[in-house]
Amino acid sequence: MSPTSGITTYRERRHGEPMKHLSLSKVYQLIEPGPVVLLTTAHKDRTNVMAMSWHMMVEFEPPLIACIVSDGDHSFAALRATKECVIAIPAVELAEKVVAVGNCSGRDVDKFEAFHLTQAKAECVTAPLIAECFANIECKVVETRLANRHNLFVLEGLKAWIDPAQKDPKTIHHQGFGKFVVDGERIELKSKMP
Amino acid sequence: MSPTSGITTYRERRHGEPMKHLSLSKVYQLIEPGPVVLLTTAHKDRTNVMAMSWHMMVEFEPPLIACIVSDGDHSFAALRATKECVIAIPAVELAEKVVAVGNCSGRDVDKFEAFHLTQAKAECVTAPLIAECFANIECKVVETRLANRHNLFVLEGLKAWIDPAQKDPKTIHHQGFGKFVVDGERIELKSKMP
Repeated sequence: MSPTSGITTYRERRHGEPMKHLSLSKVYQLIEPGPVVLLTTAHKDRTNVMAMSWHMMVEFEPPLIACIVSDGDHSFAALRATKECVIAIPAVELAEKVVAVGNCSGRDVDKFEAFHLTQAKAECVTAPLIAECFANIECKVVETRLANRHNLFVLEGLKAWIDPAQKDPKTIHHQGFGKFVVDGERIELKSKMP
Repeated sequence: MSPTSGITTYRERRHGEPMKHLSLSKVYQLIEPGPVVLLTTAHKDRTNVMAMSWHMMVEFEPPLIACIVSDGDHSFAALRATKECVIAIPAVELAEKVVAVGNCSGRDVDKFEAFHLTQAKAECVTAPLIAECFANIECKVVETRLANRHNLFVLEGLKAWIDPAQKDPKTIHHQGFGKFVVDGERIELKSKMP
C-alpha cells in the first residue's frame, strides 16, 4: 500500500472548496507568530503526524524554517530518511485533536485514523497535507548539521496552501502542559520592517 | 565608560518592586508561545537592543533557545564577540516601543535613551536586563555552527527574571509589517506533555 493511498486530493476536501496556493514570500507571516503546528511525514508505507511548537523562521524567501524534532519522536527517523515533511497549521477549533496527536506516538497509533484527520495529496512531497488545517507548507530538509546534537532541522518551504473557507483563523500558542493562549486582538503599528 | 554605568539594579526599578528569579525549568513556557522579544547586548562600552521574532526553544533544561540575528543587524557583531545577551519579553503595553526599536539601528541611535527603556544590571552577563519587560533571560551563546550560513545562534539561559508587578502580561506576536496579534483567551486541555 502506498503511503498516499486513501488520500483525498485537495480538490475533494470535506469542505468542498479547494485550497489555494499561498505565495512563498508570505509563509513567514504564518510561522513567525509562533502557532502550534502539526508536522506530517510519510515513510515506509506509513504516514504520521506530530504536534510541534519548537520552530522559527530562518529566512524569508525561499522560506527557511528551523524546527526541533526530538530523536524520541517517531517522526525523527522519517524526517531523516525522507528529508520531506508538511507543516500544517491548525486553527483553535482543532485544539483537542492537536493535544490528542501530541499525546501519543505514531509507533502505536495511526493518528490520522484515530483522530479523524483527513490526508490530502501534496504536490512536491510524499508527506500529506492535512485538509482540516487552514494552511499547509510542503517542505524539504536542507540543513542537518545540528540534527545529531540538537535535533534541529532546517526546512525549505517548497509550496504553500491556504484554505479560503477558513476566514480569519485563530491559532493557538502552547504554554506547557495543555495550556494554550488563543489569538486575540489584532493591532497594527506603522513599521517598515517585514 | 563601562557598558553598565548608569544602569539601575533590578532592585531600583521604576516600579519599585524587585524582579524575582524564575526557575530555568520554566523558561520554555515563556518562549514556546512565540512572543516578540527584545535582545540586548553590550559591546565596546555600548549597550544595544533589537526586536526579534525568529526564535524557538531547543531544549527544556538547561533552557536552550535558538535565534536568528541577521548579519545586517548591529547586534550580530556584539553577539559573536561577547557571546552574551539578554532576551527580554515585553507585554503589549510596550508594543510601540518594540516597533520603534525594530525600525532603527544601534549604529545610529542609543535606543535605550531614545525610547526610554531602563537598563537593569544582570547577574551573569554584561548585557542589560530591561526593567520595563515582564521577563528577562540572561543568556550565553553555546552553538555557532550555523551562524555563518544561517545567522543562527543557540543560546543557553543562565538566569531568568520575572516582574511580579506585571500580573497576567499579554504578549504580542508579529505577523509582518507592524501587524501583531495580542494574546487572547486562554484554554487548558488535559495533556501529559510539558
